Amino acid sequence: MEPIRNFKELTSYLKALHQRKRIAVVCANDTNTEYAIARALEEGIAEFLMIGDSTILEKYPTLKKYPDFVHIIHIEDPDAAALEAVRIVREGEADILMKGIINTDNLLRAILDKEKGLLPKGKVLTHLSMMQIPTYDKLLFFSDAAVIPRPTLDQRVAMINYAIQTSKCFGIEQPRVSLIHCTEKVSAKFPFSLDYVKLVEMGLAGDFGDAIIDGPLDVRTSCERASGDIKGIVSPINGAADVLIFPNIESGNTFYKSVALFAHADMAGLLQGPICPVVLPSRSDTGLSKYYSMAMACLTCSNT
Amino acid sequence: MEPIRNFKELTSYLKALHQRKRIAVVCANDTNTEYAIARALEEGIAEFLMIGDSTILEKYPTLKKYPDFVHIIHIEDPDAAALEAVRIVREGEADILMKGIINTDNLLRAILDKEKGLLPKGKVLTHLSMMQIPTYDKLLFFSDAAVIPRPTLDQRVAMINYAIQTSKCFGIEQPRVSLIHCTEKVSAKFPFSLDYVKLVEMGLAGDFGDAIIDGPLDVRTSCERASGDIKGIVSPINGAADVLIFPNIESGNTFYKSVALFAHADMAGLLQGPICPVVLPSRSDTGLSKYYSMAMACLTCSNT
Repeated sequence: MEPIRNFKELTSYLKALHQRKRIAVVCANDTNTEYAIARALEEGIAEFLMIGDSTILEKYPTLKKYPDFVHIIHIEDPDAAALEAVRIVREGEADILMKGIINTDNLLRAILDKEKGLLPKGKVLTHLSMMQIPTYDKLLFFSDAAVIPRPTLDQRVAMINYAIQTSKCFGIEQPRVSLIHCTEKVSAKFPFSLDYVKLVEMGLAGDFGDAIIDGPLDVRTSCERASGDIKGIVSPINGAADVLIFPNIESGNTFYKSVALFAHADMAGLLQGPICPVVLPSRSDTGLSKYYSMAMACLTCSNT
Repeated sequence: MEPIRNFKELTSYLKALHQRKRIAVVCANDTNTEYAIARALEEGIAEFLMIGDSTILEKYPTLKKYPDFVHIIHIEDPDAAALEAVRIVREGEADILMKGIINTDNLLRAILDKEKGLLPKGKVLTHLSMMQIPTYDKLLFFSDAAVIPRPTLDQRVAMINYAIQTSKCFGIEQPRVSLIHCTEKVSAKFPFSLDYVKLVEMGLAGDFGDAIIDGPLDVRTSCERASGDIKGIVSPINGAADVLIFPNIESGNTFYKSVALFAHADMAGLLQGPICPVVLPSRSDTGLSKYYSMAMACLTCSNT
């Protein structure tokens, strides 16, 4: 498989698969979610189980064009809708779970329920984002901008594994994973940089499979070769990172928001850890971003 | 004074002042520093005391065009050159200190010397950066991408005061200072967000003079009005921040490196705290960035 380098290639790839993934959407009552659903229907990459109040079809008549691929389950109460959507996914009746306008915490409660939820015991719950940046020549994955404030070593191992698995779905044979810091120096003043040493050792020992792990490196040295050359930094990442692992949620979120706003990057993102991909957009995400997140989910669970 | 909104306006403003600030440069032995010096000479905004080895003029013959404004003090040893430059500034023979290719730590040691250095007792040493981002309609100041890993409340107060003072030099009458976090929620899980509550209270009480302080806010909501509108966030920053105060060095540095690389922003920066502006560029800074930092220093110590 050729690497998928941007969202257009992702969409083309999915269309060519001729597989409709089954997406359960909780409370799809906003126009951005509707845009994403309508587009996925049109591209032929998904069908939908829409769990929510009974006005959805009246509100979005375009969805009536696809009667075979839109199934409505009427549940007025959002919490009850969340529980039902989680049950549907757990019992294999849908491949992907997606949040509409229900409050994130309410949906997460259903996902994290120890008996009836979607997170297997011992699995780390984290968030993996992906950006198409006009000034970078491939997709850039990064974690964690949304869930874990200060990852432990074990959580970082899980984050790296999720990112590698996902980037391999995108045809990246040997993902380059950069461990981000503001300097290339390791120091006890920044305990996460000591974790980075262990992670690099694990990478060299083959614990992450066929992948390159290096750090600490800053964002610029990770993504621009000339920057490392000037500073005399020799790294196998070589200014061509596929994945950035951020030290904490503040830096991950700053990256997400700054590059989206100032470099006009397009975004997608998925929760990692649950038994199926979970699309959990935030209130201010565009319809396009919600659609790309759906497409990312479809790819990661496609059986090719 | 009209607000200075970009680097071109900064340069024009300084040229019109017809003041040459006296800049002491330690070990100006690289082409990027030489570019910055030559340009400042040409624009008529500075004259130079160059403290370093004796080959400078031979290496950069263009500087010979300005014999009245380039003075060489031959000192071969970099540490001795740093000490002499600091003495010169302390005794009022120069207005600004600038680093050439001497190691940052060696120059900092001379600056921080308790008896013969430049940092008054009790003053907080921190770094203030400034960006011109093609996709933002004014200059954006931010702190701290380089010096303080985890600022205390007192250090944050100092950071805010420095940023306000500097932005007022740029003609911004009522600077909008945004306290950055990944969410607008205050929580004990993120102790700095509790500091933010106090800082906002201090702002309302007038402790920072004529300035608007608000937060926690994320980068996007701080700099884009539509983003706050969608989320229903009401803030006096109103998506038009002049200053971003980052929670920690990892997020500040991520902002610096990401926006420079992916949004092609131009940069300037100064150490804050010493008795005079200190330009302390990093190895990979461009000549243009070094020149803009010099210009920022000239403005902050101009007597208009």
